[in-house]
Amino acid sequence: MTTLSASVSMNDMANAIRALSMDAVQRANSGHPGMPMGMADVATVLWAKHMKFDPAAPGWADRDRFVLSAGHGSMLLYALLHLTGFEDITIDELKNFRQLDSLTAGHPEYGHTPGVEATTGPLGQGISMSVGMALAERMMNARYGDELVDHRTWVIASDGDLQEGISHEAISLAGHLGLNRLCVLWDDNEISIDGPTDLSESTDVLKRFDAAGWAVSRIDGHDHAAIDAALQAARSSDKPVLIACRTTIGYGAPTKAGTAGSHGAPLGDDEIAGTRKALGWTSAPFEVPADIIDAWRATGSADSHQAWQERLAGSEKADDFVSQISGEPGEAELAALDAWRCKVAEDKPALASRAASGQTLAAIIGEWPSLAGGSADLAGSNLTKTPGVGVVKAGDYAGQYIHFGVREHGMAACANGMSLHGGFRPHVATFLVFADYCRPAMRLSSLMHQPVVYVMTHDSIGLGEDGPTHQPVETLASLRAIPNMYVFRPADALETAEAWDLALRRIDGPSVLALSRQKLPFLREDDGSVNRSARGAYVLAESEGAPDVVLVGTGSEVSLAVEAATALRGKGRSVRVISAPCLDLLLEQGDDYLDDLFPAGIPVVACEAALRFGWDQIIGRKGAFVGMAGFGASAPAEDLYAHFGITSDGIISAAEALLAG
Amino acid sequence: MTTLSASVSMNDMANAIRALSMDAVQRANSGHPGMPMGMADVATVLWAKHMKFDPAAPGWADRDRFVLSAGHGSMLLYALLHLTGFEDITIDELKNFRQLDSLTAGHPEYGHTPGVEATTGPLGQGISMSVGMALAERMMNARYGDELVDHRTWVIASDGDLQEGISHEAISLAGHLGLNRLCVLWDDNEISIDGPTDLSESTDVLKRFDAAGWAVSRIDGHDHAAIDAALQAARSSDKPVLIACRTTIGYGAPTKAGTAGSHGAPLGDDEIAGTRKALGWTSAPFEVPADIIDAWRATGSADSHQAWQERLAGSEKADDFVSQISGEPGEAELAALDAWRCKVAEDKPALASRAASGQTLAAIIGEWPSLAGGSADLAGSNLTKTPGVGVVKAGDYAGQYIHFGVREHGMAACANGMSLHGGFRPHVATFLVFADYCRPAMRLSSLMHQPVVYVMTHDSIGLGEDGPTHQPVETLASLRAIPNMYVFRPADALETAEAWDLALRRIDGPSVLALSRQKLPFLREDDGSVNRSARGAYVLAESEGAPDVVLVGTGSEVSLAVEAATALRGKGRSVRVISAPCLDLLLEQGDDYLDDLFPAGIPVVACEAALRFGWDQIIGRKGAFVGMAGFGASAPAEDLYAHFGITSDGIISAAEALLAG
Repeated sequence: MTTLSASVSMNDMANAIRALSMDAVQRANSGHPGMPMGMADVATVLWAKHMKFDPAAPGWADRDRFVLSAGHGSMLLYALLHLTGFEDITIDELKNFRQLDSLTAGHPEYGHTPGVEATTGPLGQGISMSVGMALAERMMNARYGDELVDHRTWVIASDGDLQEGISHEAISLAGHLGLNRLCVLWDDNEISIDGPTDLSESTDVLKRFDAAGWAVSRIDGHDHAAIDAALQAARSSDKPVLIACRTTIGYGAPTKAGTAGSHGAPLGDDEIAGTRKALGWTSAPFEVPADIIDAWRATGSADSHQAWQERLAGSEKADDFVSQISGEPGEAELAALDAWRCKVAEDKPALASRAASGQTLAAIIGEWPSLAGGSADLAGSNLTKTPGVGVVKAGDYAGQYIHFGVREHGMAACANGMSLHGGFRPHVATFLVFADYCRPAMRLSSLMHQPVVYVMTHDSIGLGEDGPTHQPVETLASLRAIPNMYVFRPADALETAEAWDLALRRIDGPSVLALSRQKLPFLREDDGSVNRSARGAYVLAESEGAPDVVLVGTGSEVSLAVEAATALRGKGRSVRVISAPCLDLLLEQGDDYLDDLFPAGIPVVACEAALRFGWDQIIGRKGAFVGMAGFGASAPAEDLYAHFGITSDGIISAAEALLAG
Repeated sequence: MTTLSASVSMNDMANAIRALSMDAVQRANSGHPGMPMGMADVATVLWAKHMKFDPAAPGWADRDRFVLSAGHGSMLLYALLHLTGFEDITIDELKNFRQLDSLTAGHPEYGHTPGVEATTGPLGQGISMSVGMALAERMMNARYGDELVDHRTWVIASDGDLQEGISHEAISLAGHLGLNRLCVLWDDNEISIDGPTDLSESTDVLKRFDAAGWAVSRIDGHDHAAIDAALQAARSSDKPVLIACRTTIGYGAPTKAGTAGSHGAPLGDDEIAGTRKALGWTSAPFEVPADIIDAWRATGSADSHQAWQERLAGSEKADDFVSQISGEPGEAELAALDAWRCKVAEDKPALASRAASGQTLAAIIGEWPSLAGGSADLAGSNLTKTPGVGVVKAGDYAGQYIHFGVREHGMAACANGMSLHGGFRPHVATFLVFADYCRPAMRLSSLMHQPVVYVMTHDSIGLGEDGPTHQPVETLASLRAIPNMYVFRPADALETAEAWDLALRRIDGPSVLALSRQKLPFLREDDGSVNRSARGAYVLAESEGAPDVVLVGTGSEVSLAVEAATALRGKGRSVRVISAPCLDLLLEQGDDYLDDLFPAGIPVVACEAALRFGWDQIIGRKGAFVGMAGFGASAPAEDLYAHFGITSDGIISAAEALLAG
């Protein structure tokens, strides 16, 4: 792929990474030099001889993806980006490693730094997102063919990545789906933060990956010919590939190499001087000899990119491809959402919101080729497997539905990877309480601004007999607390359509749809042409004149508020009912809108079959709350609602207590 | 172990489980008949011939532990408890399966039902808690010898349990620690909820467990002799044991056996009639023939229990054993806590709260033999590895420190298992942001009332350069939202000692200690004899006369409030400063105490380097909040505090704005 200067060796190129990494960490007085120094050889051979990328076009759709799952070794990636010529990653950025507003954050951050494909650092996430990228590649390939989609996903993973449970979910899914375009380079350096890995680890990693259906090999991670041969072999594998790269952490450091001492702290001036001597690196900090820079700048695949652009220009699928890869909904997509809202408003179906969600997906999927997703073995409960949808299988990636297995965390990370790759708007599904299993990946959806849709059904004690292990009570609050995450809890079929509408129009962050198991009445009387959920809350039933009391609810409890309002009106009270399908959107509207909905001094009763936690920002300390005070219980749903007092009578009593003063 | 009536076969005994299970699910019109019917043979041979238990003494310390990791098959366990003669589990309880206030909840609930060793249902948790039980058994054995501690842990796990990532963490830890008293019976029925397991799974499970250091075998799960032989072999294994039991889900059901249709719904009257016929079971629902009941009642190990009681009575270690297994802190333990608080109050050290925590542990561990714990490969950061502490290793379980590896979720579940087993007060540690990885297990700590201590350091943007992936902003709120979880965020070394004091005195629920990376000033002036954190918040610095404004903070931000108060007093304001190390405890005190601390109408400014979410229940919608509004950033800590405006100046400005209007 690359012709190198006769005078510059791979070793010289790798040493440039080592020097930049140790010097940047030293200058920042913080960071992780050991991994970049240990994996410099592997990374050099990969980027110089095997990876398809164009520094002038970091967003080129058919580039190979490189994921540094061991994100703490961020200087490895920043050094590569600088050396290969990503324009924004200047030497000054490397000098400002880990400083405020630099492009060289402590861990790689997607969207912050060109060339960073995924935010990594929380271990196990990178390798798991890479499965989603490799899957999205095959799925786009199935739609657009080799001429437009023909790339690979390369991952550097650490011992810690492989200890994390999510890695099990990811590798077994990758093996099952036969994702042979995925290659994981395991930095097998036998060192963890606490010391030798054998303090906590005895697993035969190669056997483990073999058991999951991967092709495995082991190499000396400092032997350039062996690295080259293993990467070459990986490119023709019919399975996902693990290459165990035996390396020396902190390679070159005279006393700290091969020890935990080089993992996560600056080497210190003396050790750095000794490393320079050992490596034969004579340049000053942040200086790279011109011939080595030239050799690095000669890598990359600008020609391949040019050829691809020409193929795209000549392709009859060009418009569709560009539209799908953009991530922006087109006119047909948006029209489908609009039409469905109006249809639901006209039909007024009384449905469980999970069923309304399933109908929404079924109604729009024909106009949304980018919609793809699945469930963690709860297809019949989550209802996101729409009639006739194709199932993605090993070797057949044309479908739009994925059986993720009981792998909630890996599923969420896979969705992040699909979203980052581009081409798909992923939706993933499980029970709401199991959001806890997905949570580290959901946090990354928010942090990376990826519009993943989390369809989470069985959203309260309304699921009944499965009991407190399956009944979310704190889950809504815990998700609302995540920045940039919209949590929708629709009250009827129309609000469910509105929630999907808002989640899919959104392109800068994830949404949760918290949906009922149980049937809900239809509440709305408008024609659906305006998405009333867009401001997070709205007056569902206005009082005659100024309200004496305001009732607010979400999801399955809104109908209880409506019933309570009817009864209170019968007793001569003026009552406003507010439906609040998305508290996050409501709080974004600002105090004026809140004050409009909840006029100062007017008592408020909120009702949600969950904990009060987080509600005081809406209703204040003195507002009344009808909901849960702790964990749930196992019993039929109607018994539980009565047992916990989440009833229209409960709302009426709370309102009357407030009105009585 | 057991002599059976000549006329009653193992098959008859297993059919009793099948009949009770299908009939109870049918009557409840909800539940999972397939697994109990499929695993009835395995469970029968295990309980009748191999397991050590005494129905008259469910809490006998040396009993074998049985964990139904596949908790949805709860009727298997309830049927076993009824048939073997656990007094509380009457036939009426089985008839009330999944009804309010019955002992037979949808999923097994620890503390609710005698004989249930762990709350299960969220998949992967049971198998992972069982690792903690098996570890605690070996650790207690190392202390008290075979005569008092000599039992096993048996687990029934489903395909879903093994797909969950946490199972990877658990099995690799068990293999590493050589926990050969652990035996997992995998219900290899090839059926998941969505259909055949090959929809989502291609892993070679036996190879996977072998790679993790387990002994593995495969049997026909309906062949009693094969089951017996495999269990016998397991009892002499030198590794943890996996037995793959090939079973037919819904065994006996004429049309639904072997299909997903028997997994999670009642079989229906016709299918049940057909099953009765196929099994030759002629009894009416909830009736079990007397000879079969007699055969079941003849199982159990009352004799072994009696012999053990005699050994205990004769042991010179009896008092220590009883004290340690009780879980109640003794006088020496409590005195150590008291003495340490007073010592810290006298010394007034300025320390990072993680360092103060480490010193607390080091000071008390000599008096607390039950303290045991470790970190997820962050020993040098979390500082819970006290000087000279012994490390637990395969074959050497005398220590009190465990290198958990990068296995946060498995670590938390292991701690639950250790706590459930008895004998240990487990503490586990990682960075606070990675509470997300532990969360499903932390929820179970709360639900099961287990006093696990979660030591979570690097608790804010104060960790600096590692950036937003490592900086908790929503994490405190998300943990405070969990019922029965106390979240402590101490402001100085004395509050840190107080937090440990409260966490260890507590025996009915878990605690989180959110601790700073950075150094904190010492703030307190009292002698430490009264634990001022016990009510969650207290007046650290009182105003002269009635306050004009109240400042409240937690952890590293309390000193900012103190500085701001000094400045405001210099401007003639009367200022009260409140330290609030535990909002959960504060809210438990009730409105009167809150109103005392925060007098009505007096402006309040809260400061915490985290999101406002959850604070309005303390300070109201109109209170001011100085903290984070979104995710953090990568930079030195002091730069971040300035960048986000979390400073004494920020508090002063907020106070003055409130005072002005």
